[in-house]
Amino acid sequence: MDVISVIRTKRDRGELSGEQIDWVIDAYTRGEVADEQMSALAMAILLNGMNRTEIARWTAAMIASGERMDFSSLSRPTADKHSTGGVGDKITLPLAPLVAACGAAVPQLSGRGLGHTGGTLDKLESIPGWRALLSNEEMLSVLDTTGAVICAAGDGLAPADKKLYALRDVTGTVEAIPLIASSIMSKKIAEGTGSLVLDVKVGTGAFMKNLDDARELASTMVGLGTDSGVRTVALLTDMSTPLGLTAGNALEVRESVEVLAGGGPADVVELTLALAREMLDAAGIRDADPAKALADGSAMDVWRRMIAAQGGDPDAALPVAREQHVVTAPSSGVLTRLDAYGVGIAAWRLGAGRARKEDPVQAGAGVELHAKPGDAVTAGQPLMTLHTDTPEKFTYALDALSAAYDVAPAGTAHRPTPVVLERIA
Amino acid sequence: MDVISVIRTKRDRGELSGEQIDWVIDAYTRGEVADEQMSALAMAILLNGMNRTEIARWTAAMIASGERMDFSSLSRPTADKHSTGGVGDKITLPLAPLVAACGAAVPQLSGRGLGHTGGTLDKLESIPGWRALLSNEEMLSVLDTTGAVICAAGDGLAPADKKLYALRDVTGTVEAIPLIASSIMSKKIAEGTGSLVLDVKVGTGAFMKNLDDARELASTMVGLGTDSGVRTVALLTDMSTPLGLTAGNALEVRESVEVLAGGGPADVVELTLALAREMLDAAGIRDADPAKALADGSAMDVWRRMIAAQGGDPDAALPVAREQHVVTAPSSGVLTRLDAYGVGIAAWRLGAGRARKEDPVQAGAGVELHAKPGDAVTAGQPLMTLHTDTPEKFTYALDALSAAYDVAPAGTAHRPTPVVLERIA
Repeated sequence: MDVISVIRTKRDRGELSGEQIDWVIDAYTRGEVADEQMSALAMAILLNGMNRTEIARWTAAMIASGERMDFSSLSRPTADKHSTGGVGDKITLPLAPLVAACGAAVPQLSGRGLGHTGGTLDKLESIPGWRALLSNEEMLSVLDTTGAVICAAGDGLAPADKKLYALRDVTGTVEAIPLIASSIMSKKIAEGTGSLVLDVKVGTGAFMKNLDDARELASTMVGLGTDSGVRTVALLTDMSTPLGLTAGNALEVRESVEVLAGGGPADVVELTLALAREMLDAAGIRDADPAKALADGSAMDVWRRMIAAQGGDPDAALPVAREQHVVTAPSSGVLTRLDAYGVGIAAWRLGAGRARKEDPVQAGAGVELHAKPGDAVTAGQPLMTLHTDTPEKFTYALDALSAAYDVAPAGTAHRPTPVVLERIA
Repeated sequence: MDVISVIRTKRDRGELSGEQIDWVIDAYTRGEVADEQMSALAMAILLNGMNRTEIARWTAAMIASGERMDFSSLSRPTADKHSTGGVGDKITLPLAPLVAACGAAVPQLSGRGLGHTGGTLDKLESIPGWRALLSNEEMLSVLDTTGAVICAAGDGLAPADKKLYALRDVTGTVEAIPLIASSIMSKKIAEGTGSLVLDVKVGTGAFMKNLDDARELASTMVGLGTDSGVRTVALLTDMSTPLGLTAGNALEVRESVEVLAGGGPADVVELTLALAREMLDAAGIRDADPAKALADGSAMDVWRRMIAAQGGDPDAALPVAREQHVVTAPSSGVLTRLDAYGVGIAAWRLGAGRARKEDPVQAGAGVELHAKPGDAVTAGQPLMTLHTDTPEKFTYALDALSAAYDVAPAGTAHRPTPVVLERIA
């Protein structure tokens, strides 16, 4: 087997054989296939695609590159969720304890933010004392004791994916649906969950800008999961505007706690409940009522235990950024557009995100929204508050926001976009 | 400027701006753009193409990465030839002295063989004492004194191309017409020749397997040369069967000397004269008769002086391989096909070529043909003689030849393929 013949097969629009795929993933993981050869192959895959058989084999080879976890010792059925990433997407934070409160075991192996989308671990790390890095034994123990755990994925899970993802990130080959699908699903299948709900974001603030691409990604992933014996469902959800009223690490933790306390923004509550119902259904738990678990404080109880089990103090004050800047409405009327991508870039520039994976993030930085699309606004009223420890960043953040919202004359019709757009099973 | 945006532009079928091209070639040469990024870009170019403006700028940026030579001090007009490479393609050897004998200065910066096509420098190095590596001053001196020089291109000429070519070779991105055209033309334009004749090979033994691709490559290169002030013409020539009766280093030198002595195989003589006439015409020399220069020994005189000026002994016996193996005709009839690629692979496996650029080659190894397509053959008569110093290679060579020729019953019609297929100016 030689790598040039594998590259040429895909370059010339051929189908990669199972042997070619197994060999190239293994040889790349071992360093026998060089980065410059894998990136040429990734570009050929991006431009020429892979069929379902190829994607399934590619995913299986990534799983085979590392260890597999096993949750069969747990007394509860496992339910996992994965979001393809968006702006203000803090849903994992209220969702994991909520679903645990309803009877499932929720292992959430999460990542850090890169670019304009935030990372779940970055958010939780704004809680004083909280640790993202657990051993496999610690992870199982937190999961067994509290019903939910949110932590970093270990290095042993799909190492081929880790290496390939870092390569794709610097070679313009991230946006290949077969590679995105196999990257996500290899980790989820290796992790060993019994059921999985995918939140595939669509819109300016998401990787998938249009519904067709999102649909293709979702059905590819649902197929991969189902074929591997994982009960898998996908919701396509809107990411044209930020979720909730905050984008930033501590800001989003605060909002998540509001949801767990029975309050919080309507769209965050709606999506949390929709995903909770799908997860419970996929896990085979039919008699639970997640709305009740939010209202009666049982989800909040799991949250507090889960945070404490990972060294965090659920009662500690959250970090606040040193400087604030308020953006006001330029005229009176109705806010008809508030662009997720613009807000995401602004939050990133304020210090909530990172440009390179070794960069630190600011716990308090981000954007707080005071109005959402459809809301009436009055000239001069606060539209957003920008938070940062580094006020010299305000200018860059404001640049990203200058074309990110529209205020139309009062009475202009505004049709709200639903939170959940489609369900794919 | 950042490399991911450049890669994305081409990946998404956009046109690269002049600034993007200048920046990416320069940054790659300096090592700021990594190999894995350039190979992803090369694959995107291979699959999505470049338009004429992009190719011209890409070529100019490769030229700008190094030094330019200057032949303006010479009293004669300069004429250069480039072949895209084939099996048995020794034409440079008789052609350079022939055109010099007719009044032009012929600087032939040549390469070594890689894969199944031989390299001009490898062939000449079978002459005892001959040196390929000359300083710029030595090169100009040999050219000025003898009228012709065949030597290795210096490291200073288009270093970006050198680096990119080595990368393409290991990443399955050699076969991109815009990149092949700019690679060849950047070196030829940087070399500073006044006129250039391109021999674009078509057929199984060539890079370009079909006439459409060869035409596209030829017209791209003619456009690049013309736009840079180099009078450029291309001939598309047949490479479905080997040129002449030899493929191998010393074997091809011997055949070239036969041509210079007024003999040699008809196809080699025909192509040598056709290219000589084009070169002289492009150089503005209208009154020379190359056929006469072969017949009267004046081309041979230049050859002897040129070889001697580079340390070679034109009278020395050429190396002969230690072992021979004769392949005979399986039946009587007419040889209707003798495949260039099969013969090239056989010569390569016998030791005439190299798999990696650091491998040595055998001077005496190769394939000697005793019949060409259209010739009548009798069962048991010698068809080819294989030469090698390493007889354990015979089996591998014979493998490559087993499906490389057809003998049809006597009387079967055979339409010969012309040597020169088309002219593009």
